[in-house]
Amino acid sequence: MIDRNHGTLLSIGVDLGGTNVRIALIDGNGTIIREIHAKTEANQGPDYVIAHIIEMIKQVKSEHTIRGIGIGAPGPLDPFKGVILDPPNLSGWNHVPLTSLIEREFAVPVVLNNDANAAALAEAISGAGIGYKSVLYITVSTGIGAGIVVDGKLVMGEQGNAGEIGNMIILPGGPKQSNLNAGALEAVASGTAIAREGSKRLGTEVDAAGVFQMAKNGHKEAEKIIDEAMTYLAMGIANLIHVLNPSLVVLGGGVMKSKEFILPIIREKTTEYLYPSLQPFLKIEPAKLGTKAGVIGAGLLPE
Amino acid sequence: MIDRNHGTLLSIGVDLGGTNVRIALIDGNGTIIREIHAKTEANQGPDYVIAHIIEMIKQVKSEHTIRGIGIGAPGPLDPFKGVILDPPNLSGWNHVPLTSLIEREFAVPVVLNNDANAAALAEAISGAGIGYKSVLYITVSTGIGAGIVVDGKLVMGEQGNAGEIGNMIILPGGPKQSNLNAGALEAVASGTAIAREGSKRLGTEVDAAGVFQMAKNGHKEAEKIIDEAMTYLAMGIANLIHVLNPSLVVLGGGVMKSKEFILPIIREKTTEYLYPSLQPFLKIEPAKLGTKAGVIGAGLLPE
Repeated sequence: MIDRNHGTLLSIGVDLGGTNVRIALIDGNGTIIREIHAKTEANQGPDYVIAHIIEMIKQVKSEHTIRGIGIGAPGPLDPFKGVILDPPNLSGWNHVPLTSLIEREFAVPVVLNNDANAAALAEAISGAGIGYKSVLYITVSTGIGAGIVVDGKLVMGEQGNAGEIGNMIILPGGPKQSNLNAGALEAVASGTAIAREGSKRLGTEVDAAGVFQMAKNGHKEAEKIIDEAMTYLAMGIANLIHVLNPSLVVLGGGVMKSKEFILPIIREKTTEYLYPSLQPFLKIEPAKLGTKAGVIGAGLLPE
Repeated sequence: MIDRNHGTLLSIGVDLGGTNVRIALIDGNGTIIREIHAKTEANQGPDYVIAHIIEMIKQVKSEHTIRGIGIGAPGPLDPFKGVILDPPNLSGWNHVPLTSLIEREFAVPVVLNNDANAAALAEAISGAGIGYKSVLYITVSTGIGAGIVVDGKLVMGEQGNAGEIGNMIILPGGPKQSNLNAGALEAVASGTAIAREGSKRLGTEVDAAGVFQMAKNGHKEAEKIIDEAMTYLAMGIANLIHVLNPSLVVLGGGVMKSKEFILPIIREKTTEYLYPSLQPFLKIEPAKLGTKAGVIGAGLLPE
């Protein structure tokens, strides 16, 4: 296990989602000591939600001394300034200086990062990535995101935007989706992409889970849709391996609910696109921490 | 400038190429104190070449105390074991334990890395990247390679293969070239790719420089070939920016001989493929150290 030199110092993790907020007291190895969660009630606006978060932190912290508070939240956000910009999942939030508002209440450092980075850190330090030098965490749900952890630390990038792999072009001139590049990874391999192709080609309005179900039942066109998405996902993973050569790739997100079905396919296709010298070393594992990854990773954010 | 804490400690850099070998005494900031070079005479075999390198090191080192010796060489190689595997540019070299053979002669650590990584380190620490936190160095010549430097250190990867961007798939089902993926970046955007398309579409056997010359002279099909290659290169760079969000991208290699012609095109096209929030921050600069990058970077390899 990576030694973060503060295994006995506690911290607070806040996983702020559009639907739920989860707050936990955790130790430096990512073990949850105590945890509470509630509905975010994002529609009540930032003032209400932040007051609620502060109350919950007090409750979880109780009489414990903590070294800091980490918050994982949906992007876009500015991790260096600690400001939530205008995430689609937190409507009405517009340039909210979240860390300074929380810091005012507690005399400890408060750190903000996006939810994919928080989950990446959690999986690297106390999940599937325990013992590995570098971890590339990829989440495939309605969107596709990533976090890169090297030697127990997140690779953030100059503007804090490293890991925005959903916008990598994988099929020039391919499908357009929201504000992404034509043929971007997220536009050809995400749950949204699978649902879009399904609804277009299966003669019925269907979501990604529906397409997976039909494919598992042997529906040929549904199988083809999943196969295409997994091919593009494998190309994306192979590209990232050629760039970063991580010790381990961890796959999380909603699409991994079908992991027994798709993980062998992803491993086989990714291998095919790697330099032969790298093929024997390919390691793709499913995320281990499930819905707790966000709050654990948030708690690991403070140095 | 990044402080490497050994600004006054000297080291030896060895740039071992298929044609020339260049050896220099340099300080911790990458300044060359003294330098010699000679033909590699690779056809004389590794024993001869290594004996020659040892003689040259002694000559350059003279009475100076050095903290280590760094060697940049063509891949494939194993940087962790210090072994040259079987590079096409050093024929007859097959699993040569280069660092241990040199270490035997000098009582200092000897470090081996590939030439793209050495050049990346040089540009990051004492070239175009001075003052930047993270640098993505990309070399476009007959091949395409990269080196990633974060906080003054190379991102190596688990097997030492980070930066193998030439094999990233950029055009699924596209042209095949040597052992690369179909439609790999190197197969659609390298000097080799430009020469291949030129020879196929211009009605005459032509190299990359020839296609560039024809394009500069206004030949429409040659312009189209360059434009296609630069489009794929820009997609590759944009993809890498979305993954790494580096402070700076540095472009080097033979294709940059036409930098006045292509750099504005590459900047414009890359911008087009970035998230709007990242566009204002795009920084692509030409490499500064020219043919000295390899030997300077080699000298910066020892910690």
